[in-house]
Amino acid sequence: MIKGLRTIEPYVAGRQPKGKNIIKLNTNENAYGPSPAVKQALADFGVDSLRKYSSLDQADLRHALSENLGVPADQIIIGNGSDDVLFMAFLAFFNSDDPILFPDLTYGFYKVWAQLYQINYHEIPLNEEFEIEVEDYIADNGGVVIANPNAPTGIFKSLDELEVIVQANQDVVVIIDEAYVNFGGQTALPLLKKYENVFITRTFSKDASLAGLRVGYGIGSPKLMAVINAVKNSVNPYNVNSLSENLATAAIQSWDYYENTIQKIIETRTWFQSELEAIGFSVIASATNFILTKPAGISAEDLFNHLQAKKIYVRYFPKQERIKDYLLISIGSQAEMERVLEVIQELTP
Amino acid sequence: MIKGLRTIEPYVAGRQPKGKNIIKLNTNENAYGPSPAVKQALADFGVDSLRKYSSLDQADLRHALSENLGVPADQIIIGNGSDDVLFMAFLAFFNSDDPILFPDLTYGFYKVWAQLYQINYHEIPLNEEFEIEVEDYIADNGGVVIANPNAPTGIFKSLDELEVIVQANQDVVVIIDEAYVNFGGQTALPLLKKYENVFITRTFSKDASLAGLRVGYGIGSPKLMAVINAVKNSVNPYNVNSLSENLATAAIQSWDYYENTIQKIIETRTWFQSELEAIGFSVIASATNFILTKPAGISAEDLFNHLQAKKIYVRYFPKQERIKDYLLISIGSQAEMERVLEVIQELTP
Repeated sequence: MIKGLRTIEPYVAGRQPKGKNIIKLNTNENAYGPSPAVKQALADFGVDSLRKYSSLDQADLRHALSENLGVPADQIIIGNGSDDVLFMAFLAFFNSDDPILFPDLTYGFYKVWAQLYQINYHEIPLNEEFEIEVEDYIADNGGVVIANPNAPTGIFKSLDELEVIVQANQDVVVIIDEAYVNFGGQTALPLLKKYENVFITRTFSKDASLAGLRVGYGIGSPKLMAVINAVKNSVNPYNVNSLSENLATAAIQSWDYYENTIQKIIETRTWFQSELEAIGFSVIASATNFILTKPAGISAEDLFNHLQAKKIYVRYFPKQERIKDYLLISIGSQAEMERVLEVIQELTP
Repeated sequence: MIKGLRTIEPYVAGRQPKGKNIIKLNTNENAYGPSPAVKQALADFGVDSLRKYSSLDQADLRHALSENLGVPADQIIIGNGSDDVLFMAFLAFFNSDDPILFPDLTYGFYKVWAQLYQINYHEIPLNEEFEIEVEDYIADNGGVVIANPNAPTGIFKSLDELEVIVQANQDVVVIIDEAYVNFGGQTALPLLKKYENVFITRTFSKDASLAGLRVGYGIGSPKLMAVINAVKNSVNPYNVNSLSENLATAAIQSWDYYENTIQKIIETRTWFQSELEAIGFSVIASATNFILTKPAGISAEDLFNHLQAKKIYVRYFPKQERIKDYLLISIGSQAEMERVLEVIQELTP
């Protein structure tokens, strides 16, 4: 009998099916590859430099981001994916006894980290239209976490509405997770100049086509940066490897390419949504690279299984009562989505 | 006033000086570059695959390690450096109220993680010869952490002595950190078949010349793997990026190359030690890729400063009372160490 072992429910991440001719639309990966500049950076990378430790402060990448975002480089922290930045933020910012607040339908990891680090939390139900009600977040709490746009709904809050939440909660940290912001949301970056309690997280996994590289970042006031940098240096100071920093820097420096791929995804999303609506599906207006849709003439479960039989992988949430009749479908290339539509049309009357 | 912010001492990691013609011997990086197979793997890597998430279970790398080590692949967990594996192990295994035990002179992060996660700990003084006394670890405790070989001393414990500690502590987890084992230590891998409370960690940063790639791993019983895998899936399931997994796999599959570079480092270490002893320095017999030495005819501080003025960076511990008269010097290439010796000889009578 070994004492001290943690009792923990293993969290089950999305499936990662492999194989040829599959269409993988279950984890909101980008339909397009990274920019030619990233390819060039990979080709130019000197393998011998890997014998040395990676950078402790990722200055190159932070400066590239600073140029791109118009935010001082010392207000940026880099992580091994935005998951890394987010869990460090939970450790750094949520140490009061009051519960932190986040929606009942949102990124599943907020709850997992709260449980792991024994942070009190309170899940606030989205309203009937799956939207965040601003007034629900004006209450005593130990912090707020809002994904904007939210996942898996795809819905975004306007900057004005977000500001009401930030302003009413200046005694705690408000984390705004902008993983999907460039697909149609509204960024909270302008709030950084007015409020020192805002912490914004972003990722290279979605708009920058680099999910496999594991790079994310956080942006906050100097006051918050001092705390989260101390946490980073106490958890894993060399948290970003040299190749990832180098390639992510190339991605940011070639952002024109991504403006184009983002636009293509938005166009395909608009087309796909209207086609689904034409056959009676309800589709929630999305500001992301996925849609949440309720099928018509077939159950979510049946459609999920039929698509999988055709090697099309989407996301189905049978254990989440409020969205068990919905499917989440990432927006792939136009050709992939035409194929998906074809299969759906075969199945529906 | 923002509540909930963590009060934490920022941990200061070793300096990472940059520039041409420097000799960097302060963080125990490998003197030689990665294997040609790693270079080839980098050249062959398809950048488009980065748009997809990295593997959730690193099966390719675990199977390569399984072949190399003769340990079942499902008894291996991969991390973003062994720091990642170690902090997950602390979270996973040290949840009783009893203090965990580790030496007063050892890898500085054990104490940092214990503090971060509010784990009780007790630092056990090494004996006068900077060695671990086995009987000190036979006492009620919440777990044991031993770096073997130890850093910054470079001294290793025999397998027989380690087994006494493991056997006497079967009600807790004993972590054995083998970051430096291949430079002359004795691995605890044989204990895995007899004890389910042993957890061994390793890194690609030292013997595999891949510090910049951030890959480490842990090996333990199925019972321990279930707990630490659940923790991994609750912290950051995509903790290892695709490039790092791919290149680390190539490194393991080309281990013959590394046998050779390890041998070269051992030969240079032996030569360097005897040269230092010839000018009166005392040198602790090292089973690692660094040595801890007490200068003669010059103080540690003066030697540290003089070396730095010559762009030679070593490690000096002015705040650690027991080793404040010592310097830690990583073993570079033979040419680098000849240059270091030359500078030292100029300074000492």
